[in-house]
Amino acid sequence: ILKEILQDWTPADIAELLIDLDEKERVIIFRLLHTELAADTFEYLDFDTQMDLLKAMGNEEVAAILNEMDPDDRTALFEELPASATKQLIQLLSPEERKLAVTLLGYPENSVGRLMTPDYIAVKPDWTIQQTLDYIRENGKNKETLNILYVVDDKGKLIDDIKIREILLSPLDSRIADLMDENYVSLNVFDDQEKAVEMFRKYDRVALPVVDHSGNLIGIVTFDDVMDVAVEETTEDIQKQAAVEVLDEPYPTIPILKMIKKRAGWLSVLFIGEMFTASAMAVFEEEIARAVVLALFVPLIISSGGNSGSQAATLVVRAMALGEVTLKDWFLVIRRELLTGLSLGLILATIGFIRIYVWQMASHIYGEHWFYVAVTVSLSLIGVVLWGTVTGSTLPFILKRLGFDPASSSAPFVATLVDVTGIVIYFTVAMFILGGRLL
Amino acid sequence: ILKEILQDWTPADIAELLIDLDEKERVIIFRLLHTELAADTFEYLDFDTQMDLLKAMGNEEVAAILNEMDPDDRTALFEELPASATKQLIQLLSPEERKLAVTLLGYPENSVGRLMTPDYIAVKPDWTIQQTLDYIRENGKNKETLNILYVVDDKGKLIDDIKIREILLSPLDSRIADLMDENYVSLNVFDDQEKAVEMFRKYDRVALPVVDHSGNLIGIVTFDDVMDVAVEETTEDIQKQAAVEVLDEPYPTIPILKMIKKRAGWLSVLFIGEMFTASAMAVFEEEIARAVVLALFVPLIISSGGNSGSQAATLVVRAMALGEVTLKDWFLVIRRELLTGLSLGLILATIGFIRIYVWQMASHIYGEHWFYVAVTVSLSLIGVVLWGTVTGSTLPFILKRLGFDPASSSAPFVATLVDVTGIVIYFTVAMFILGGRLL
Ligand SMILES: [Mg+2]
Ligand SMILES: [Mg+2]
Ligand SMILES: [Mg+2]
Ligand SMILES: [Mg+2]
Ligand SMILES: [Mg+2]
Ligand SMILES: [Mg+2]
Ligand SMILES: [Mg+2]
Ligand SMILES: [Mg+2]
Ligand SMILES: [Mg+2]
Ligand SMILES: [Mg+2]
Ligand SMILES: [Mg+2]
Ligand SMILES: [Mg+2]
Ligand SMILES: [Mg+2]
Repeated sequence: ILKEILQDWTPADIAELLIDLDEKERVIIFRLLHTELAADTFEYLDFDTQMDLLKAMGNEEVAAILNEMDPDDRTALFEELPASATKQLIQLLSPEERKLAVTLLGYPENSVGRLMTPDYIAVKPDWTIQQTLDYIRENGKNKETLNILYVVDDKGKLIDDIKIREILLSPLDSRIADLMDENYVSLNVFDDQEKAVEMFRKYDRVALPVVDHSGNLIGIVTFDDVMDVAVEETTEDIQKQAAVEVLDEPYPTIPILKMIKKRAGWLSVLFIGEMFTASAMAVFEEEIARAVVLALFVPLIISSGGNSGSQAATLVVRAMALGEVTLKDWFLVIRRELLTGLSLGLILATIGFIRIYVWQMASHIYGEHWFYVAVTVSLSLIGVVLWGTVTGSTLPFILKRLGFDPASSSAPFVATLVDVTGIVIYFTVAMFILGGRLL
Repeated sequence: ILKEILQDWTPADIAELLIDLDEKERVIIFRLLHTELAADTFEYLDFDTQMDLLKAMGNEEVAAILNEMDPDDRTALFEELPASATKQLIQLLSPEERKLAVTLLGYPENSVGRLMTPDYIAVKPDWTIQQTLDYIRENGKNKETLNILYVVDDKGKLIDDIKIREILLSPLDSRIADLMDENYVSLNVFDDQEKAVEMFRKYDRVALPVVDHSGNLIGIVTFDDVMDVAVEETTEDIQKQAAVEVLDEPYPTIPILKMIKKRAGWLSVLFIGEMFTASAMAVFEEEIARAVVLALFVPLIISSGGNSGSQAATLVVRAMALGEVTLKDWFLVIRRELLTGLSLGLILATIGFIRIYVWQMASHIYGEHWFYVAVTVSLSLIGVVLWGTVTGSTLPFILKRLGFDPASSSAPFVATLVDVTGIVIYFTVAMFILGGRLL
């Protein structure tokens, strides 16, 4: 009876159930599913659970599942596996499926080819709607989607796309040619997956056709897979923005040693960069010795630069990821950030001045030259915040221009840059304002 | 002829063209489109461009466009407008459309109701496939999607969903009831839009039905609108993570004063929080006066805590947003972060020790007690990095538990918390190790 109940569940729900079970139960339940449902469910499992199941099953069972899987989901599985395991599993496929799997894996990583499935419906311009519907009824079963059909010419060249709605709304005796507008959107098989994300966001399609260099239709990509890519890309950007090397695995399941490695790299680089603050401070050691009060404000001032820099960097990187800002907008962005940085600096300078004034009135802790100390702090704040904002907003452009990922201009990276220069700005202003007085 | 060329363009492409044109040309081109294409194109425009066009058109033209627009896209437009303008525009609608618009706007902000359109196809269990296809052909024209049909009983209660693929693959004389599995996924009209995002990600549907409290079908939500919500939610989270109040407008077009306000708020709060670093340093002013060398390492040590805290906070917030981590996982997360923090602290401590040793050998700048200084710095680093990691990973849980958005545990916020405590940790360790020597 459990078998019959599961029969009516969606693959997504069965997958969720399986993930929550322990390994033994998981295999038992999975074996209850008939091959088609098993393959569909398998497609919804995360990589680790997929591996557990594959290991627990015999070669024949594995072969049945792999042969039944959608080609695109199979590529996703093979991609994650070590090359040797992939080779082994590919041997289990039927000759036809094997050829397909090898072709798909032949496309570069992160290319549209890796997301593609060749299970689409192609129709000819001279078919009638009736013919088309009959054709779908006979051949549609294993197609990835029936929501959009593709029109190809006799050589297999893509010449149009037609939504199923147009088919359903047309009289049965009209022809495909009557519905064609010879206008369509397509992806190239070598396009980057980010291009696919962009196209789906722009055109709101549930699927897009994929063509090769000569314009021949060779597959389709569906919105669900592209949505997954988009979520993954965003996660990557977010992790880079926090100076973490991309985890590539969910936080709760990534082995802890692996996670430490992903975090230690950048953290060490930033640490070594931040060492220059000690060097910078050492240059002004004498000044600090003469006026210890100066040292008190160092963390306050440099962190303000770091914070304003993080804000700027994050806003610019996200705007770039959304395509709102491109390289040619750099001048507009810098102009805006100069103005913003100056305003933010003025605001913090005012708060800082008031703070020192109030504390001084209350306790005289800043000594007789408190006014000049306050001016030093305020002027430094303006300089450091402005500098932070400009650095944070410029760095993504520089990285992108040099061919790096702008998301690498992480908040901590910007903060470190600004910390070092912030110390120099602060003590330079101090020597100028306090020279002859405190210093 | 321009008119005929545009005829074959997709609404998304015409919208892109219009956005690039100046205001005058934009109105001229827009007027060339026939009402249906104009409305479809209008739906793809950003709010500012929509406003420009509405202002440039006469009441009659505006009425034609608004009446032709999809109800969901119309809601999106009305949402952005000031209440008075919305009222005015609603008056221009036909009685029927007006009633609908008012109903949709009646649902709470960020609820599924605001994304919904009532233009769906509902079928009855006893219909044959032939009947269904005929019904679609007659009534499908203005429906938002024909990719999924919904089965309702005589009282309008949703009892199943059926993909068009199942209809297209079935013999014409079979009945809807034969295709039903009485298993479906639906949203409640009052559900949060984030729920919708989750459901679409999980079930890979192109549309989901929306029901009211008694389970009656009242509308559908389509994947493209939910994808837009998902992108927007992510942008919000990213901005919060950088301590920016959510911009709610694209970076390049938000008025600069507005942007400054969105950034100044958090920046000031953080600045005021960071003032405690000055107070904390003041407590140890005497120690600094006696051993200026201690001051040199303050930025290095506290920023390491901030960086490791940013990493932890960002990873946990993102894992929460993806549903990988929930409140009940706090213990698992803290345990992992304790281990990670300790390891990362040890790594930085080692690098820090080597750095001081090498510099000392080269130049003797750290004086006779350099070894104890190095030990102080290293021990502090372990403490501060561990503390940063724990703070960064715990804060999102605390915020979520208290009903706040975990994304507000921004990198700069964590860094500020850790800066203040980091100073206390550092000088406490210093007094312990260097007491009787340097201090
Ligand atoms: Mg399948
Ligand atoms: Mg699939
Ligand atoms: Mg077309
Ligand atoms: Mg869209
Ligand atoms: Mg797929
Ligand atoms: Mg990327
Ligand atoms: Mg429309
Ligand atoms: Mg629409
Ligand atoms: Mg169903
Ligand atoms: Mg999915
Ligand atoms: Mg819509
Ligand atoms: Mg949110
Ligand atoms: Mg800092």
